[in-house]
Amino acid sequence: MQKYEFDTIILGGGPAGLAAGIYASRGAVSTAIVDLNMFGGQPSNYLELENYPGFSTVGGYDLMEKFEEHADKFGVQKFPMQEIQNVDLKSKVIKTSDTEFHAKTIIIATGAQPMKLGIPGEKEFVGRGVSYCAVCDGAFYKDKVVAVVGGGNAAVEEAMYLTRFASKVYLIHRRDELRADKIVQERAFKNDKLEFVWDSVVDEILGEELVSRIVVRNVKTGEISEIAVNGIFPYIGITPNVNLFNGQLQQDSRGFIVTDDKMETSLEGVYAAGDVRTTPLRQVITATADGAIAAVQAVKYIETLKDVPQRV
Amino acid sequence: MQKYEFDTIILGGGPAGLAAGIYASRGAVSTAIVDLNMFGGQPSNYLELENYPGFSTVGGYDLMEKFEEHADKFGVQKFPMQEIQNVDLKSKVIKTSDTEFHAKTIIIATGAQPMKLGIPGEKEFVGRGVSYCAVCDGAFYKDKVVAVVGGGNAAVEEAMYLTRFASKVYLIHRRDELRADKIVQERAFKNDKLEFVWDSVVDEILGEELVSRIVVRNVKTGEISEIAVNGIFPYIGITPNVNLFNGQLQQDSRGFIVTDDKMETSLEGVYAAGDVRTTPLRQVITATADGAIAAVQAVKYIETLKDVPQRV
Repeated sequence: MQKYEFDTIILGGGPAGLAAGIYASRGAVSTAIVDLNMFGGQPSNYLELENYPGFSTVGGYDLMEKFEEHADKFGVQKFPMQEIQNVDLKSKVIKTSDTEFHAKTIIIATGAQPMKLGIPGEKEFVGRGVSYCAVCDGAFYKDKVVAVVGGGNAAVEEAMYLTRFASKVYLIHRRDELRADKIVQERAFKNDKLEFVWDSVVDEILGEELVSRIVVRNVKTGEISEIAVNGIFPYIGITPNVNLFNGQLQQDSRGFIVTDDKMETSLEGVYAAGDVRTTPLRQVITATADGAIAAVQAVKYIETLKDVPQRV
Repeated sequence: MQKYEFDTIILGGGPAGLAAGIYASRGAVSTAIVDLNMFGGQPSNYLELENYPGFSTVGGYDLMEKFEEHADKFGVQKFPMQEIQNVDLKSKVIKTSDTEFHAKTIIIATGAQPMKLGIPGEKEFVGRGVSYCAVCDGAFYKDKVVAVVGGGNAAVEEAMYLTRFASKVYLIHRRDELRADKIVQERAFKNDKLEFVWDSVVDEILGEELVSRIVVRNVKTGEISEIAVNGIFPYIGITPNVNLFNGQLQQDSRGFIVTDDKMETSLEGVYAAGDVRTTPLRQVITATADGAIAAVQAVKYIETLKDVPQRV
């Protein structure tokens, strides 16, 4: 059993985790980032980003590579591809089958993921017509036709947001009424660019290089039809990556970790940053700032530990 | 009298303002940034930054130029060097001697400034030994000797933070006891790298290319001495740039604008982002994220205005 000790261990090597790594290691505390996968997180799959200020256009993979190099510069220890079996946030111990990581502080930056439709073509066309973020990608669909899937507030609001760019937006919902708030619905019904496709689900996403059409099935009549679209935005929910420590600290009803504006969680010495926490906006830039704040707080907290007599 | 109308007007062209401009204009609302000076804000004066994730090293001026080009790409209208005479946040009208700007939403991103010592050498050596931000610049002083000026929590905490890098840190305070909290003081007194210089003020900062020494005067005895240092960090306070709208919205006791985590202020349709608001950390990355959040909220708010019958 290999054993490591660090002042700060960061769970997750996406934008929030790498930013926390940059700030913590630059703050002269020993810092490790541990991830189940390779580093880079969600943005690694984005073909193009044009809303990380400072880079007017950049590939997601390229940007995350820059983040990683930046963290390397300050000596962050990296542990990608770890098969983590157990995380105990209170004692701050992380275990894989052959390694134990001990920390004074933990920064949770494991992210969240949009719920998938789970249909053919979805995975294949991510970044080439399938998007889970209207604020991120809406501007790429100027004068194009897109579909949004879902019926909650997020789906309806993002569909309306997309009408700022797209010439037409289909809102495809499996029921015959929306779950969204009344006021949101009223606004949506008044929007000329929005066309509602009720009682329907998407069975398949088709195209060549890019998405060109979707196969839609009416769940009441069984009727199948094709709709020509340039993009499809599934908005059926988002779920935080919290399996490894569910229930160990305060979370909201959907599982997101509750923090204050200093990224402090309900556990002392444990911080959360980025998409995994309750936050009004999930973007690379906001996750990155969260990581910086969490790390600065962790460094300050480590400083105070010097007052406490250590158990021997 | 020239008259302009915009969906969103951003006050201040630093990181928060430019990021808000990027997000608002990319969100397809008409957007202007108005500044008293040239764009770029505080970072324009930083010789080097190494903590904006994605750029492991970058000149402050260069980074802000990239931000500005990024905003240009999406068509932000820029109004630098405006001699603003009046800002009415409630009616959302901004006046100069010959121009009126009308907006549906205003994003305040006017920043804050560290209080200056006001002594010879201070202005000249900014970025070359004079720094107002230990988290930003501490890492540049590895194994060097630095002085911190002040006696409050910020001064003492930042002095301790600097002991992580510097071989020695002088804490120069005009009184014979600290204003900082007791617990902070106790921690400071135990720190071997910290040397207190009581009853003293700094009269002058000296050096060639970089700072090499400071002139210190004991206010009780009148005695003058020189201390060799590589850097000096004045921590005598920070004040928000709120002259133009002081008292028009909720502020804290020091004048910083109170916001929630969506950057909403106490006035509808008015947002605040970056150093000017109450925030746990003042960094380029956090100001930038604030700007993005404020702009996304502003875009959503503008959408809801369509429901409201317009007065004619």
